[in-house]
Amino acid sequence: MSEFRKDPLSDHWVIIAPNRAERPEQFGLGSLERSTGRCPFCRGHEADTPAQTAAYSATGRLIDQGPWQVRVIPNKFPAVENVREQRPEQRDFFRSRHGVGVHEVIIECPDHVTAFSHLSDQQISLVFQAYRDRMAYWRGDPRLAYAQIFKNSGASAGASLEHAHSQLIATPVVPTQIENELVRSADYFQQHGRCVFCEMIRRELADPIRLVEQTEQFVAFCPFASQFPYETWILPRQHGSHFEFTEDGRLVGLAVMLRKILGRMEHLLNDPGFNYLIHTAPFGSTHLSHYHWHVEILPRVSNTAGFEWGAGDYINMVTPEQAAHVLRFGREPDGRQT
Amino acid sequence: MSEFRKDPLSDHWVIIAPNRAERPEQFGLGSLERSTGRCPFCRGHEADTPAQTAAYSATGRLIDQGPWQVRVIPNKFPAVENVREQRPEQRDFFRSRHGVGVHEVIIECPDHVTAFSHLSDQQISLVFQAYRDRMAYWRGDPRLAYAQIFKNSGASAGASLEHAHSQLIATPVVPTQIENELVRSADYFQQHGRCVFCEMIRRELADPIRLVEQTEQFVAFCPFASQFPYETWILPRQHGSHFEFTEDGRLVGLAVMLRKILGRMEHLLNDPGFNYLIHTAPFGSTHLSHYHWHVEILPRVSNTAGFEWGAGDYINMVTPEQAAHVLRFGREPDGRQT
Repeated sequence: MSEFRKDPLSDHWVIIAPNRAERPEQFGLGSLERSTGRCPFCRGHEADTPAQTAAYSATGRLIDQGPWQVRVIPNKFPAVENVREQRPEQRDFFRSRHGVGVHEVIIECPDHVTAFSHLSDQQISLVFQAYRDRMAYWRGDPRLAYAQIFKNSGASAGASLEHAHSQLIATPVVPTQIENELVRSADYFQQHGRCVFCEMIRRELADPIRLVEQTEQFVAFCPFASQFPYETWILPRQHGSHFEFTEDGRLVGLAVMLRKILGRMEHLLNDPGFNYLIHTAPFGSTHLSHYHWHVEILPRVSNTAGFEWGAGDYINMVTPEQAAHVLRFGREPDGRQT
Repeated sequence: MSEFRKDPLSDHWVIIAPNRAERPEQFGLGSLERSTGRCPFCRGHEADTPAQTAAYSATGRLIDQGPWQVRVIPNKFPAVENVREQRPEQRDFFRSRHGVGVHEVIIECPDHVTAFSHLSDQQISLVFQAYRDRMAYWRGDPRLAYAQIFKNSGASAGASLEHAHSQLIATPVVPTQIENELVRSADYFQQHGRCVFCEMIRRELADPIRLVEQTEQFVAFCPFASQFPYETWILPRQHGSHFEFTEDGRLVGLAVMLRKILGRMEHLLNDPGFNYLIHTAPFGSTHLSHYHWHVEILPRVSNTAGFEWGAGDYINMVTPEQAAHVLRFGREPDGRQT
C-alpha cells in the first residue's frame, strides 16, 4: 500500500511505494529492457498492458478502437493507488496519509520508436495534446491537487522501457518544488507587481547570452542558476499559469521547439539520457497572475553525488552561457566544434 | 572562475564550476578510472597530487613526512576557489557571488583499498578524526560558513577514482538543506521545548521497527520518510550540534557502527555504490540546543528520474520498516533470505 510521508524535519514529501519494486528494472541501475523481447507498448500488443484510459487518432480525436497514434494506460506498477482514500491523514510526530493518486503512461507512438526526436512534429503535438487532455480530465477529480507530467528517456534518466513514452502522476498533495515556486513567485508579485517568469523572459531576450531559441509563441533559454549542464527551459511568452488551458495551436509551436532542442542535444551531447517535465499551477486555481507554466529539459550528462544529496545544492560544471551557446550555434564559444 | 548563483525563483544555491569539467570522468556517466594505471592516491605517489594540507600517522598524530595513514590534499579540480573573495555579492534580479571556498580530498588509506568496509575500525576512526580536525581547522577561516563532508563510493554514486577517499567542501554559504533543517528544528524546539532529533531517537528506540543498530553512544535507523531505499542515519545519543567538537572516543564508536552497516549493505544489497555525508551545524555558532549532528548513508540502488527532479519529492520502493529489518536481521520480514 502506497503512502505519503513527511518527517518532522523535512519539507519534502516521500511516496513510499512498495508495489513499484516489482517493476522490470528492480534495482537494476541503468538496465533498460532491450527490444529483443515483445514490446508491450507497440500497436497490436494492447492486450499486454492494462486497458487504456484514452487513445487518440492521427487527427487528435479520442477513439475507442482502431489505429491509435497516442495511447494512455494506467501504469502497471503505479507509485500511487487509484482508489478512495482509506484512512484519514495522520498529523502526529510522523506525518502520513494514504498514497492515493493516479499514475498513467502516455505511449507516444504506435511503432517501436525509441528516440523522441525521431517522432514528427505532428506526433509530438499529439503527445502534448494528450498531456493537456489528461491533466484537464484529472483536474475534475476531487481527490487530486496536482498532476506532474514527466518523461524519462534512456536508462541514465530512469527509463525502464525503451519504446517512447512519458508519465503522469497526479496526487492529493502539491509537490514540494511546485509549492516553493508558488510561494516565491507570489512573493515576487507582491513586491514588484509582475510575474517573475515574465520578467525572466524579458531579461533573457534583452541580453540573449543564455538564449537557445525563440519564436513568436515561445522562448527557450538555459536558466541563470541551471542545476544541470545544458538544462533548458521553454516558456510561453504569453502569460499563463495552467498548462491544461493551452490551445491546440500553441501545443504545435511547443512541440516544434522541443523537438528541435532535443534533436540538438542528441546530436551535440552524444545522445544523452534526459528528462523533461512540465511545471504548472495546481488544480485548485483557475488563473494565477504570479505563476507561469513551463517545460524543463534536463539532459543527464553528469552524476549527482554526495555533495548534492547532502547540501541540497548542485555543482554544475558547464556555465549556462556556454551551454546556451552550444545549443544555439552548435559549437563552443571559442569556435571549437563540439 | 567558480560562482554561487541563485535564481529569483529557487531557494537553492548552484555552484557554477567550469574548471571541474576537466576532471577525468568528464561527462562519462558511470565511468570510473580503473586501477590499471598509476593511482595518484597510493602512498609513494604523493608527487602526483597537489601538496598535502594534512597527514596523519597510525596513532593519529599530524605528521609532515614519513608513512601517513590518512592524507588530506586540495582537490585538483575544485568546485570552489581557495582565494580571497574578488567581487562583492550581487543581489540583483539574478543573485550571485564569487565561488570562494575550500575543496579537499581525504585519502582514507595508504594502500590501494577500494572497499571502505575493508578498512579496519581503527583506520576508519582515523578518517573520522581527519574529518573532525579539518572541519575544526576551516571553522577558523572568516570566509567560510559551513563544511560539507561527503563520500562518493562507486561510479553510480559519482566517484571518479576508486582508491578509498572522501571530500570536504567548505563554502561561505550554508547549504539549502542544512538551512532548512536549522529553520525547522528551531521551530520544533520553540514549540516543544526539545530537540527534534532527540525526540526522533526516543521514538525509534521505543518502537524499534526502523532500528538498524544501537550502542551506548549511537543509534542507527532507517528514517520514517526515507527518500531512498535502505537510507540509514546514524545519530549520537548524546545531544551535540557540531560534529567538529566530537571527542576521539566517540569517533571510534561511530567508525565501528558505520563499518558494520556499510559491510551489511555491501553483502545484502549486492555491493551498491553509496554516499555518506555528515550534517552538522554551521561554523557561526558553538552550541545549538535544537540541532543535532548526524551521518546519513545513501546506498544507490535506484535511479532518480523525471518525477523526482520535477516534484522535488522522492518515490521510495522499499518501506523503511522493511529496509531496517533487512539491515538488522539480514533477511526480508517474511523470512526470505536476501
